[in-house]
Amino acid sequence: MHSPVQLQEIIEKAIPKIDYPAHPANLYEPIRYIMSLGGKRIRPVMVLMASELFNADVNIALDAALAIETFHNFTLVHDDIMDNAPLRRGKQTIHEKWGINNAILSGDVMMVESNKHLSKVDINVLKPVLETFNATAQGVCEGQQLDMEFEERGDVSIEEYLEMIRLKTAVLLGGAMKLGAIVGGASEQNANLLYQFGENLGVAFQLQDDILDVYGNPEKFGKQVGGDIMANKKTFLHLKALTVAIDSEATVLVAEDLDPETKVKAVTSLYNKYNIKELATVEMEKNLSLAHKALAAINVADHKKENFRMLVQQILEREH
Amino acid sequence: MHSPVQLQEIIEKAIPKIDYPAHPANLYEPIRYIMSLGGKRIRPVMVLMASELFNADVNIALDAALAIETFHNFTLVHDDIMDNAPLRRGKQTIHEKWGINNAILSGDVMMVESNKHLSKVDINVLKPVLETFNATAQGVCEGQQLDMEFEERGDVSIEEYLEMIRLKTAVLLGGAMKLGAIVGGASEQNANLLYQFGENLGVAFQLQDDILDVYGNPEKFGKQVGGDIMANKKTFLHLKALTVAIDSEATVLVAEDLDPETKVKAVTSLYNKYNIKELATVEMEKNLSLAHKALAAINVADHKKENFRMLVQQILEREH
Repeated sequence: MHSPVQLQEIIEKAIPKIDYPAHPANLYEPIRYIMSLGGKRIRPVMVLMASELFNADVNIALDAALAIETFHNFTLVHDDIMDNAPLRRGKQTIHEKWGINNAILSGDVMMVESNKHLSKVDINVLKPVLETFNATAQGVCEGQQLDMEFEERGDVSIEEYLEMIRLKTAVLLGGAMKLGAIVGGASEQNANLLYQFGENLGVAFQLQDDILDVYGNPEKFGKQVGGDIMANKKTFLHLKALTVAIDSEATVLVAEDLDPETKVKAVTSLYNKYNIKELATVEMEKNLSLAHKALAAINVADHKKENFRMLVQQILEREH
Repeated sequence: MHSPVQLQEIIEKAIPKIDYPAHPANLYEPIRYIMSLGGKRIRPVMVLMASELFNADVNIALDAALAIETFHNFTLVHDDIMDNAPLRRGKQTIHEKWGINNAILSGDVMMVESNKHLSKVDINVLKPVLETFNATAQGVCEGQQLDMEFEERGDVSIEEYLEMIRLKTAVLLGGAMKLGAIVGGASEQNANLLYQFGENLGVAFQLQDDILDVYGNPEKFGKQVGGDIMANKKTFLHLKALTVAIDSEATVLVAEDLDPETKVKAVTSLYNKYNIKELATVEMEKNLSLAHKALAAINVADHKKENFRMLVQQILEREH
């Protein structure tokens, strides 16, 4: 069994070996570029880890892991176009570097590349693998659609927000876990429990991200602290504050005429007054507890699950 | 065995029955919209026809046919964004009606829907089906990339152009034929011959489109006659004329300061002077002959191939 760090190394070594065609260069160069930008490779590590829980040979899950990582990066390429984002992991986004049309098309090919990786899994698990992957991909697209629509709406409820982050972020972690489990030969029940583990962990992960945006250590948090507040982003904290603050106080949440520093300070005070951080933490821990419950129910020796608990710690202890 | 028209009816009936999710409505409504815009459904008809050549039950190939039609429409959605096209089949394009971001995302989900259809084929042919589909999808994206790049280049050769239309247009016809053959239980040799039939027919089809743009009957040709000339589009005729005309004559091909009528007239005269129509027709017929040769080599009773010859006629006798 490999540690999460060892699994990450396996992924890092496998990615440069993916054999993309040489031509047309401008179609494939962006793919090599985004795939090499790094990150913690959490999703493909999850695939390998889930597989290893049931099967000693980690290589059996490598294709599925690369499919998930390629798909994840495809969503980043297209999301960055939609969000008009100039930077990704501190580097120019593909549409900035190669133009929007090129970015759309390279993204499309990444979806195909992802399916090519996937089609290499053992024929005995191919049907459930495709079913899981397609349901996952569909959910992620639905989540992105809801996220875009929420930007234009003033009446997003907490429930809708939780459903959106479930689709946009958590389904992919659940899908990664389930794919790994299927490829590793898990029973349907164990595979579904790992899905639940991943999905609940994903929701917790996003809620923690919402919290860290406001309360993270500026020196450790990768993004600018207060970024969501400045962008009037409808995070859990924002939406929760809207439901509990009195109207005259709530205006600061959507105010656009304040300088950034004043705005972040005022919104943070409002959050503090209504214990929003604690309310978000309760919601996060609820999801975390559901994840651990699903993990506990998986029918394998408990010591084998240590890696999963390490992964949870690694993900949630991050300040970035 | 069904005639091409009957097969088209089967497709037309099957499309409204595809069960897309209801929510998010703005993600799935564009898919229903584009899929219902019609067209001749040539590609899915090809899937069914190829399958029926080897298997009596046409329904066996319906999922693969819907996968191909969904994929084709996905490429139209994304291509229309890239080409900034306002209309598709006389109706507003998706990005015009729902916005660019929505069009990117609905297109992405169409790719997933396409894979969902595909994953339903019999497990015994699933691997070759996926392999054929993914190679096809990849080729189409490469063709679109080359097409975009050619717009910016002044030194595109005839060989490069033929390779571009092979990828952008012909590979999908070949892929549709091969998918149908595989699903219908054809031998690998027969499936590959049908691929060659479809691919060569596709090149011939595009060359004829280039010819009809200049020499088509304005009352029957669906698009505006001379449209390619006005847009300085690098068609076979344009590129061929560049290679044979003397420099002072060739300037008219790329001139942007002429009124449309004068430009179309001048370029057509140039084409006439150098027998460009005949040269293009020779190239078209070369590909058509390769298609018929591949069809003839397929190891089934000749009378069963009548549908394919009808399809060729139907495609090539069109003036629109």
